[in-house]
Amino acid sequence: MADLHPLKRQLGDRLITDREVMAAYAHDTSRVSPEGTPLALVRAERTEDVAAALSWAHTHGVPVSVRGAGTGLTGGANAYNGGLIVSLADMTDIIEIDRENRTATVQAGVITAELDAHARTVGLFFPPDPASARTCTVGGNIATNAGGLRCVAHGVTNDSIAALVVVLADGRVMRTGSRTRKNVVGYDLTSLFVGSEGTLGVVTEATVRLKPVPPGTPRTFRASFDTLEDAGRAVTAIVNGAAQPEVLELMDALSVEIIESFHPSGLTVPAGAMLVGQTVGLDAAAKAEAITATCRATGATDTEISESDSLLEARRLSNPALNARGLKISCDVGVPVAALADVFHGIAEISARHDKRVSTVAHAGDGNLHSTVESPDTPEGIAEADAVIDDITKLAISLGGTISGEHGIGSVKRHELPWQLDEAALDVQRAIKAALDPRGILTPGRAI
Amino acid sequence: MADLHPLKRQLGDRLITDREVMAAYAHDTSRVSPEGTPLALVRAERTEDVAAALSWAHTHGVPVSVRGAGTGLTGGANAYNGGLIVSLADMTDIIEIDRENRTATVQAGVITAELDAHARTVGLFFPPDPASARTCTVGGNIATNAGGLRCVAHGVTNDSIAALVVVLADGRVMRTGSRTRKNVVGYDLTSLFVGSEGTLGVVTEATVRLKPVPPGTPRTFRASFDTLEDAGRAVTAIVNGAAQPEVLELMDALSVEIIESFHPSGLTVPAGAMLVGQTVGLDAAAKAEAITATCRATGATDTEISESDSLLEARRLSNPALNARGLKISCDVGVPVAALADVFHGIAEISARHDKRVSTVAHAGDGNLHSTVESPDTPEGIAEADAVIDDITKLAISLGGTISGEHGIGSVKRHELPWQLDEAALDVQRAIKAALDPRGILTPGRAI
Repeated sequence: MADLHPLKRQLGDRLITDREVMAAYAHDTSRVSPEGTPLALVRAERTEDVAAALSWAHTHGVPVSVRGAGTGLTGGANAYNGGLIVSLADMTDIIEIDRENRTATVQAGVITAELDAHARTVGLFFPPDPASARTCTVGGNIATNAGGLRCVAHGVTNDSIAALVVVLADGRVMRTGSRTRKNVVGYDLTSLFVGSEGTLGVVTEATVRLKPVPPGTPRTFRASFDTLEDAGRAVTAIVNGAAQPEVLELMDALSVEIIESFHPSGLTVPAGAMLVGQTVGLDAAAKAEAITATCRATGATDTEISESDSLLEARRLSNPALNARGLKISCDVGVPVAALADVFHGIAEISARHDKRVSTVAHAGDGNLHSTVESPDTPEGIAEADAVIDDITKLAISLGGTISGEHGIGSVKRHELPWQLDEAALDVQRAIKAALDPRGILTPGRAI
Repeated sequence: MADLHPLKRQLGDRLITDREVMAAYAHDTSRVSPEGTPLALVRAERTEDVAAALSWAHTHGVPVSVRGAGTGLTGGANAYNGGLIVSLADMTDIIEIDRENRTATVQAGVITAELDAHARTVGLFFPPDPASARTCTVGGNIATNAGGLRCVAHGVTNDSIAALVVVLADGRVMRTGSRTRKNVVGYDLTSLFVGSEGTLGVVTEATVRLKPVPPGTPRTFRASFDTLEDAGRAVTAIVNGAAQPEVLELMDALSVEIIESFHPSGLTVPAGAMLVGQTVGLDAAAKAEAITATCRATGATDTEISESDSLLEARRLSNPALNARGLKISCDVGVPVAALADVFHGIAEISARHDKRVSTVAHAGDGNLHSTVESPDTPEGIAEADAVIDDITKLAISLGGTISGEHGIGSVKRHELPWQLDEAALDVQRAIKAALDPRGILTPGRAI
């Protein structure tokens, strides 16, 4: 077994080997179990701690798992048997907010919603907005190139990242990017590390781009539909319309039922699906009117506009509500937005063929769907649910889609990679991994 | 010498060895000369032609230069002695415009402005807009992650690229990306190849993202200032204001003089600098009013709003006007936008210290500057100009900036790389290059 003493001398209390403490850091929010019992946990407080940890692991060939808040849904942060856990959850400094250049520089463990709240004190906001924003970390968002509710208007996490501090596999520290708006200086290493799920290096610090908070009062809108296909067609029409939403989410009937029974807020379960969204700016009310009119023209049976956030709050409860039923999201497919009606139609067919109830929530405006299969939490039940998700994933790919919109691959979706990527692309990914982590210590066997 | 016959059998007339024909394909628009006499030119018409060319070059260890329209400014497309030139200028098919998903799929040799014009026939446009849009190609824009006039509103080329077809160094064909809005499936190879200047593979086809043409009549605005610093402060104020421009360009007095003497259009040379820009949307007039009011509040002596494009047309003539004087742009620095006044102040000091006249145009809204030094076209004159550009570049870096905003590194800026990148980042770039092009045939000795 590798000798921990040199690392202990460098890290002191920040190196932990207590089994009970480690257990809380050994898994993410997926239904995949850790791969065994970890050797030690590093609760890093600064970049140098991570550098010391990786340098030690590199020397000893010890596998490393990396985690922020552990809200991941793909097993990407799960511990390895005999491995080192590097936690960034204590790296919570907001180092700088640069108002005039609209950037913030933060440590990787800052909670996403806290960065956003800090930015708002100077009239700015942080666009990425995963449903778990109140518990997940900026570093975790970067590791999976996370999405969320505001992507339809502002893109994914990578669109908001200007520069990174990264600890490489051998412990060296590298800076990428620039806080300028444009930068073509060698390869775009920032984008390479964003979404690399801890397999190429550990991001310890990020300079992110902020945007000005739009003036006026946001409006939340709802439209209920008798069928999912109608709701899908409405989304395509909205996205191609003149009035653009800041948020455009979909919940099917079963999802609304699950959320409402977890935390009742007076939502009426629709016959087919419900779109909820938000508009911002001085013309927020006019845009909400235009969007709900589009919904009625494409078949909405009932629409509503309000100044309250409660509909979006309900949408954010989807994952906790599923977890309370013992269900875990494992589907994160994306399709081109014009294919939404087709993918919903196909999901209904798949659900019927497998005789399983499937609930779907979607970041509808960007064509990103999370379907969950009601199935017992037994090996057989999980295998049956996986078969449904595999069919939905193949359907999405047949429609020009993707196997993961925002959660990443982790260990859960690794078998799906060849469904989307050609052999040359898989080879190139393996070649990059081998070049940057030749001993294969960083999150081995996941993501690629 | 490598035997061309097998390649000739595959490519027929598309393989050319005529010296006069090759000479026209041997250099870009920079002042750097080709590195010798090329062996042959491939005028590719399809991805398979490029695959055949690279497979042959890989087998024989022949260096390859790649070019679209040859409008590059850094020597990146210049031919190698005994090398193969791969021209994509004949790959001009617009394969598909997908209106509902707002994407276009094109071959790499499509002229940027022609793609934009095609998109406009269905109410969409292609956001990237280099000053050379009427002559440069989409593939060239991808190779350098080109910028242009609309970046302040829409970002750089990479922000508009969804998916690529790439020929790898050994001739294998790879697809990257997805036409979905979100996609986290292994490493972001699309962003890795965008801006890689032909050193990792050859992009033969791209699926790009389009945006809806804003309604209403655009307004062009102008504001003249007595000093460059005042104009810089105005830009910082505009970018942080409520009314956002689609275009925000700066020309200093000498630039206006050079453009006006090349193609007189009645521009009044300002004492210090002129901002020109454009607003779009139904509120274009109100936004132009707000922006010119901000300019007057920060020291503009004279402002103007019009529905004519002529001011922007004048700005686009900057590079041809410089070329007509025997001058070549080689400076492409970027700074955070709040540092514009400081960088202009510093450029004046550098100009005085070197006793050289420096003209500067800038994509001011994103802090990207092109300074040109008046200096004789002799080895001594060029060395003197280079010394000025080096000082301006170091100044930009000291202000948190970048050595290249949109032109790339090519061979012209390679000595500047260690000024911006740390040793670890340089190592990582070299490791990626070695992993993907182990024989070093693709644009060797440039970009990284």
